[in-house]
Amino acid sequence: MTSASTRAAGSVGVVETRYADLPAPVPLDCGRELPVRVAYETYGTLSPERDNVILVCHALSGDAHAAGQSAKPRESARDGFGAEDRDGTAGKGLGWWDGMIGPGKAFDTDRYFVVSTNLLGGCGGTTGPASIDPATGRPYGADFPVITVADMVRTERALLDVLGIGRLAAVAGGSLGGMQALQWAVTYPDQVDAVVVIASTHALHPQGLSWNAIARDAIMRDPDWQGGRYYGTGRRPDAGMGVARMVGHVTYLSAASMGDRFGRRLQSSADVRYTITDAEFQVESYLRHQAETFVRRFDANTYLYTSRALTYFDLARQHGDGSLAKALESVRARALLIAFSSDWLYPPQASREIHDALRALGKPSELHVIDAPYGHDCFLLEEARQTPIIRAFLGLDENDEEEAP
Amino acid sequence: MTSASTRAAGSVGVVETRYADLPAPVPLDCGRELPVRVAYETYGTLSPERDNVILVCHALSGDAHAAGQSAKPRESARDGFGAEDRDGTAGKGLGWWDGMIGPGKAFDTDRYFVVSTNLLGGCGGTTGPASIDPATGRPYGADFPVITVADMVRTERALLDVLGIGRLAAVAGGSLGGMQALQWAVTYPDQVDAVVVIASTHALHPQGLSWNAIARDAIMRDPDWQGGRYYGTGRRPDAGMGVARMVGHVTYLSAASMGDRFGRRLQSSADVRYTITDAEFQVESYLRHQAETFVRRFDANTYLYTSRALTYFDLARQHGDGSLAKALESVRARALLIAFSSDWLYPPQASREIHDALRALGKPSELHVIDAPYGHDCFLLEEARQTPIIRAFLGLDENDEEEAP
Repeated sequence: MTSASTRAAGSVGVVETRYADLPAPVPLDCGRELPVRVAYETYGTLSPERDNVILVCHALSGDAHAAGQSAKPRESARDGFGAEDRDGTAGKGLGWWDGMIGPGKAFDTDRYFVVSTNLLGGCGGTTGPASIDPATGRPYGADFPVITVADMVRTERALLDVLGIGRLAAVAGGSLGGMQALQWAVTYPDQVDAVVVIASTHALHPQGLSWNAIARDAIMRDPDWQGGRYYGTGRRPDAGMGVARMVGHVTYLSAASMGDRFGRRLQSSADVRYTITDAEFQVESYLRHQAETFVRRFDANTYLYTSRALTYFDLARQHGDGSLAKALESVRARALLIAFSSDWLYPPQASREIHDALRALGKPSELHVIDAPYGHDCFLLEEARQTPIIRAFLGLDENDEEEAP
Repeated sequence: MTSASTRAAGSVGVVETRYADLPAPVPLDCGRELPVRVAYETYGTLSPERDNVILVCHALSGDAHAAGQSAKPRESARDGFGAEDRDGTAGKGLGWWDGMIGPGKAFDTDRYFVVSTNLLGGCGGTTGPASIDPATGRPYGADFPVITVADMVRTERALLDVLGIGRLAAVAGGSLGGMQALQWAVTYPDQVDAVVVIASTHALHPQGLSWNAIARDAIMRDPDWQGGRYYGTGRRPDAGMGVARMVGHVTYLSAASMGDRFGRRLQSSADVRYTITDAEFQVESYLRHQAETFVRRFDANTYLYTSRALTYFDLARQHGDGSLAKALESVRARALLIAFSSDWLYPPQASREIHDALRALGKPSELHVIDAPYGHDCFLLEEARQTPIIRAFLGLDENDEEEAP
């Protein structure tokens, strides 16, 4: 028997994103129906019993490429605080959760078959606002229907049907990905054995609503947004989306971690240079860099639609007539909730509320609040500390015998 | 004898903003000199000995109209969380700190002569980016020199010279106003008896730098900003400044107070309406309203220059070779520091650092951290709880005999 701690965690290797056209339009909460193509990747091997599937759901700015090296050169979707420079992975096209998915990792591909999709409305291959509307032959733009987390989950359900997968051993995700996991447990209680909900919430608090509203307004106030119909015009709302990204980025970090990393260090070694337009502090330059790299790889309308969906998400309102307990009554999945002490965008309190509600209903739930400094980004950064918790929850470390030499 | 608590606090009445052209250009930190007109108001009566003067300094979005009713109709600069609706003062043109300045109030005009100026670079009558550059006959715009808090204080010093005032009994202000008070104590140690520094800091932390950088970028990325030369073009960067204001506004509040006031209440009583562009949540509508009212009364370039000045402010760097203690060595004024528990933009820790440094130097300092929920805006809202602290610090309540009937 080899313990998880002595076995080197490996990579899923080079992977390619695949695409599936769903056989029927997806019915949406808004009342419309949408023909959908889904971009997805899989890691590991589907068991003959098809009982080892974990669906991984990404957050606002992610995509289907969650693990391994991309077959094609691409801009990384690794968004963690300093992800590019902390491990020299820039340019290698590693998936956004590569540290968590692979042989010997938290979502262990030696045992599990991991499916990762780009969410509905995305810009990573799944149908979204930039896709061609078959009714007009032009990109949807602002005619794309307003979508919800439940719509994303319906789409994921339909893709799994295409892949011949009925049951899920687990659904896992952080932030908006965690909302999808919760939605799975509520919408398909008989099809999910477990959910892993990280740095997430049952309903974003009003300050979080505000940051999202400001980010969306920054995009929509950019004249290059053109009412959402900017595709093919040669102009994109990069200026506004850059502001949106900077707002988002600061909310993903903690004040303390920004202090540790940047302090008030100036760009020039000497003194301030008395400039309004140029970056004077290193943190100012860092934020602009974040904005620049993000607008190159992300579609502004996807940002709008995805941000709207995550602000709408409200289990109590949508499924419990205002009561979270009532909304969770149908849940049959075991729940693992992980939150981070310094996460002020998705504070631990929301995870605690879910945990308490599940426990009060007599349902199995486990809550871990990890004391860590990096704010909301912890779910992308604190891989080492999440791994043993997730492996234990998934019963991984008791079953290593079969893989021992 | 009438105690402060039984005497009704009154108003300074109807006031008019006055203007003074400084006799000589103000020398600036950036090396340039600037001819300056200052807008100011005064409340109360200057004593024959000219020893009862309190200078009040405003924050980013304030102006010279700190107390009383404006003689002319105007948009209020009362920016406190819900200031407009909490006391029915909308449309009455009350000064931004009317609750704190007047007969029987914290800055008691029965005893003190209060001077309030619009800061250098402002848009409330003092020379700023929208003023005419005598060299060109056109508004400065982006040619306005980059200014510092020390430049603002030099300007205030020059105005007081014009008014024949040498010594100050106190300099008081919140936020950027508190920075000015600290700067007074450092630059003119022999001319200031006391400083009242509220919800302020000796140097803004990196997250605060970030919010300011994002707000400035939102303005500068608006094509209507036109490199700062938008005056007379018929186009102003209202869209970008609206975003800047919304960012600022959220940082002035606490997450808890936003939760209490707005929750996740929808604009429509029924359900969400599946819209990207319209406000769905009440807090979204509130933020847009804040943006709209602000852009009507405030100049975007003043926002840029003032924001830059407050991010530059760093007593340790500018006056202590990196040491706050060294920067404060020259201070002779008694210090009163007030901070608010929920203020995450100007957290109590910064006030504590100033207090500790002053005490370690053997200088008189008093620190009060008020437990209050409204975030940074507390300095505009928690008037009742600041008043006894300030009155006691200014020795007001021992001296009521002379005013008793």
